[in-house]
Formats: sequence, structure tokens, C-alpha cells
Amino acid sequence: MSAIALQGSRIMVVGGASLVGSATVEALLARGAAQVVIYDNLSFDGEANIAHLKDDPRVRILAGDVLKLHQLLPATEGLDGIVHLAAFMTLNFDRDPWGGIDVNIRGLQNVLEACRANRVRKLVFASSNAVYGYGPGVKGDLVETTPFHAAGAPPAAILYGASKIMGEQLCRDAHRRHGLDYVVLRYSTVYGERQHYRAANALYIVETHDAIKRGERPKVIGDGSETKHFVYVGDLARANCMALEAPATDIALNASGPAPVATLELVRLVAELAGRPDLAPELVPPDPNKVRLTSGGAFAIVHAAAKEAIGWEPQVDMREGLRRLLAWRDGAG
Amino acid sequence: MSAIALQGSRIMVVGGASLVGSATVEALLARGAAQVVIYDNLSFDGEANIAHLKDDPRVRILAGDVLKLHQLLPATEGLDGIVHLAAFMTLNFDRDPWGGIDVNIRGLQNVLEACRANRVRKLVFASSNAVYGYGPGVKGDLVETTPFHAAGAPPAAILYGASKIMGEQLCRDAHRRHGLDYVVLRYSTVYGERQHYRAANALYIVETHDAIKRGERPKVIGDGSETKHFVYVGDLARANCMALEAPATDIALNASGPAPVATLELVRLVAELAGRPDLAPELVPPDPNKVRLTSGGAFAIVHAAAKEAIGWEPQVDMREGLRRLLAWRDGAG
Repeated sequence: MSAIALQGSRIMVVGGASLVGSATVEALLARGAAQVVIYDNLSFDGEANIAHLKDDPRVRILAGDVLKLHQLLPATEGLDGIVHLAAFMTLNFDRDPWGGIDVNIRGLQNVLEACRANRVRKLVFASSNAVYGYGPGVKGDLVETTPFHAAGAPPAAILYGASKIMGEQLCRDAHRRHGLDYVVLRYSTVYGERQHYRAANALYIVETHDAIKRGERPKVIGDGSETKHFVYVGDLARANCMALEAPATDIALNASGPAPVATLELVRLVAELAGRPDLAPELVPPDPNKVRLTSGGAFAIVHAAAKEAIGWEPQVDMREGLRRLLAWRDGAG
Repeated sequence: MSAIALQGSRIMVVGGASLVGSATVEALLARGAAQVVIYDNLSFDGEANIAHLKDDPRVRILAGDVLKLHQLLPATEGLDGIVHLAAFMTLNFDRDPWGGIDVNIRGLQNVLEACRANRVRKLVFASSNAVYGYGPGVKGDLVETTPFHAAGAPPAAILYGASKIMGEQLCRDAHRRHGLDYVVLRYSTVYGERQHYRAANALYIVETHDAIKRGERPKVIGDGSETKHFVYVGDLARANCMALEAPATDIALNASGPAPVATLELVRLVAELAGRPDLAPELVPPDPNKVRLTSGGAFAIVHAAAKEAIGWEPQVDMREGLRRLLAWRDGAG
């Protein structure tokens, strides 16, 4: 039962130059961490995401690969805790499924081995509501014991979800074998400042915003009735910190936003916040060549267990979170 | 849509020296294969399992490792089809989960790469009803779209099931990318001649038989009411052949025996067939340190889709299959 006092701590964020990573580094610093190591291969928008952090004397940036144990082992010496975020998501699994298996499974194994070798006290592992699967079988309240629905889903989506199921079990196994304390957080779809184009579900936000800025009607695939359940990136960064701070261990917890939203409602909200409520969504049929994850049913990802175990609940609703995201995009763009 | 005429064909069985492998090699030879390559690392009882096959001029034995592409690539030149069986099951995943991930995922990736490189026309991949998971959530009719239940299961069981879920998707991905034809067969618990001690559910058969031979009452963990659904090894060997022969591709099919059986009923049947119906089962509480897979509910693994897609259905009921298994053990022991 390792509860890590973040004040004065040394924490590494693997995948620290990502959307969630950069927000987590900010949150760790705000809670008084003495050193935050950003371990990241700096692919994608990595350097831009952490440009505002790189001159902080408490921040150490290591351009390292999670697949290279000889880089991870020295990097993890003397740490109190690790937040492990580095992963392929569904869109990248679609492009390169074997690479996704390497990063999501072998990469986590390397981090677990580094924790064991260097006696790191606690790991927060970023899992996903993808462990509940995809498609019309996913409906109602999704709690931590909900099974994995795969029927009819594309290979990339199933591979991604299964890689997270296996990752959670590798953490359990490390706890049993080596006493590693860990908390799994099953993130729902993340959105917020530094939003990218690599997450299938969050594409609706950025693509809608792009369309609005071009003066075009935003597109919605299908009838837009299917549910998405987002969580604001700042809320997740706080969840990562609280998972380190709490005595909780050997547990998997949903981390979702205040409430789910229907796709059509989301797109209308983005249009409204972008000042063009008149640009009504245009419904288009699905493109069979593109991985777009839709669910026929309505679901909600219940985060009550996280409140119970680590005291966390989301604070930022979609209107406020989207307002911040659009303001960042307008400033950055 | 590759339908392989087995007469005159060249087929490799990866894991060919196993329980299912050795029976599959026999079945392929009986159907007129010109050459059957047994690719196996000859761990466990491998050499004993294929001793009766090694002098057949059509059999070629390669002591190779599924993790070594430089062994697999030359071994797979000129083949018409591959039956891929090599895998860790739950008990071995419990002892060495990382080794299980290597063999079940990386090993399959290597086989898929060998199929692509050498233009092998069809692959039969041995999956498992472990893709439906474990525990009380697994009940009723299990069909190919049933979700994966993991709540409450030990890490090894979840890792094993998830490794098979991922394996199936890697086959789908290879079909989409490279046009590889494949059939996934989701084996239920196998039993038959050359039965070993490495399969958690089939342990009831061999351990009961051992107890009876010592004149002891067989032990049943819990109340013995939970369901097991076995399939006779000869039926599976035939399923592997029929999956190669049928035009079916890009499909996953259950391969289970005629009917499920309750554990208590199974143990009584073994005692009866071993000539000691008087040795009544003794109910013992579960040992928390041992991986024993029990399900609170009653389930049946439905094999109707296999009948539809490849014309297969099981022929050997448990009484006859157990009679053959015990006769083999009495002869071998």
C-alpha cells in the first residue's frame, strides 16, 4: 500500500510529451514534485506539447524509447513513482498493429521490469474503456466488471482493447510476484488543450472545429445518436496524481467525465461554442475504409469506484472543457 | 477462398508433437497428405507423442522454435497449409506469463509472417473458448459473438484468453493486408489419447484416473456442479483437416464436444469406466494458491456455426472418448 506524497517526490511520466502526459507533468509540478522526468520518444507533436515545460528546472526531458530497456533502466533509478501513458490507440493500431503490440505490451513489460529492478514504489497504468469493447453490445452502465464486447468490431479496435486488458493483468502479475503497487485508470475518451488528431472518438471535436472555421457544416457519421463519454484532460491529470497519492493498490478504476454525450449533441455544442450555431451538422453515411468507432446503444462509464478508492471525480463538464480546448486551438492556430 | 485438397498436399503442424498436434498429423496422413511437417520445440512429452509417427516417410520432424523466424521461414517453404497449435495455456501462463505472451502472440506473428513470405495458402489457428472468459458471468449458450468475461478471474486465465483474442485479430489483419485465408477454431477443453497434465480443466480426468488406480477416492474442488465442455482430440483433428479443406475463410468457429458435463458427473464417469464406481468423489475446498478454473453457472459451447461453415460436428461422446483415453493410459502406464 504505497501512498506517495507528491511534495518533494521524483516521478516519471512515460509518454510525458503527449496530451495526457503534458497535463500530468503540469499537475505533478503544481503538487510540489521535486523532479518530473518526461520519458518520451518525441514522436507526433511531442516537442510542441512540452515546450512550455522544458525550461522548468524541475523538469527533465529524456528522449527515450519504451521498447529499449537499456534506456528505461537508468532513467528509472531513484524514482518514487511512474505514470505510464505511452501507447498506440486504435487509429495507430489500424495502421500498424504489430507496432501497437510492441508498444502496448512489450513497452509495459519493460516499464514493469524497470520498476522491479529499481524498486519504484508505485505505477499508474493508463488503461482505457476500450476494455469494455465496441459495438451495440456496449450499453447501459459500464462498471469495472463489465465484459469485453468485440463482435463486429474492426481488428484494430479489438487489438487495442485486448492490449489494455493484457496490460492490466501484467500489472496484477507484477503486484503478486514483486509487490509492485499500482493503480490502473481506465480513461474514457480524453479531450482538452493540446488535442491531436490521433484519437478516433475525439476527432469529432477537432474536425468539427476545423469545419466551422472554414465556414462549413460539420459532418456527423451515421445518425449521431450513439454515445461518447469524454473526460477532460485536466481531470485525468488530477486522477493520475491522486492514484499515486492514495494508498489504493491492485485495482482498476474507470476515469470518465461527468456525463456521456450523444455525437450530434457534441457537434452542435462545438459549433455553438465556436460562434456558429447556425452551421447545423450534416449526416453522412459511414466510410467502410475508415476506422470510426460507433456504438448502437447508449452507455455511461461509471466512475463511482474511483471516488471510493482514490477520492477522484471529474470536475470539468463538456461545455467548459470544450471552451478551453477551442480557446487553446484558436490561440495556437 | 482457399479450399485445400489434402490428398497430395504439404501441411505443417506447428506444435505438431502435442496432444492435438499428434492427432492432427495422424488425421492429415489418413486423408492422403503427401508430407506432414511436425514443427515443434519438443518440450514436454513431445518425442513420446510422435514416436509412432517418426518412421512414416511422409512425416518430417523439425525441432524448431516458433519464436525463431530464421527457423520458421525455411521450414514453411512450399507448404499448402499450416495448422498453428503452439501455445501456452493457463497453467503455463501462471508460471511464466511473459513466456506465454511471447509464444502466443509473437509466435503467431512469426507464423503469419512466414505465411506471407512463402505464400502459404491457408492457416488454421487454434483459439480457445477462453475467449469467452471465466467465472459466473459465463453461462447459457456460448456462441461466437459472446463477450469476454474477466471479472474475478486470475491473471493467467485472463492473459491466456486475451492472447487468443489478439491472435484471432492478427489472423483477420493478415487476411485484410495480405489475403491470407484462415479459419480460427475455438477449441473447448481437449481430452483423449496422449493426455497430459498441463491443461487445468482436463486435470480432472487424469487426476481422477490416477486416484482410482491408487484405490483412492477422487477429489472434486467445490461442489462439482460447474460445467465443463470437452471435445475429443480425434474430433478436433478432424476439425483441423476440414477447416483446411473447406472454402471457408476469415471466420472464427467454436469446436466443442457433443454436450457439456458437470464436474461431478465427469469424475463419476471416469471412476465407473475405470471399474471403481464405488470410489465416490470427495468434495474439497479450493486451494487459493492453485489456478483452478471454475464457473458458477452452467454453459454450453454451441458448435452450430462450424457445421454450417466447414461441415464439422463432433462425433465422439464423453463415455467413448474417456474409454479410449483410459485404455491408452492403461496401455501406456
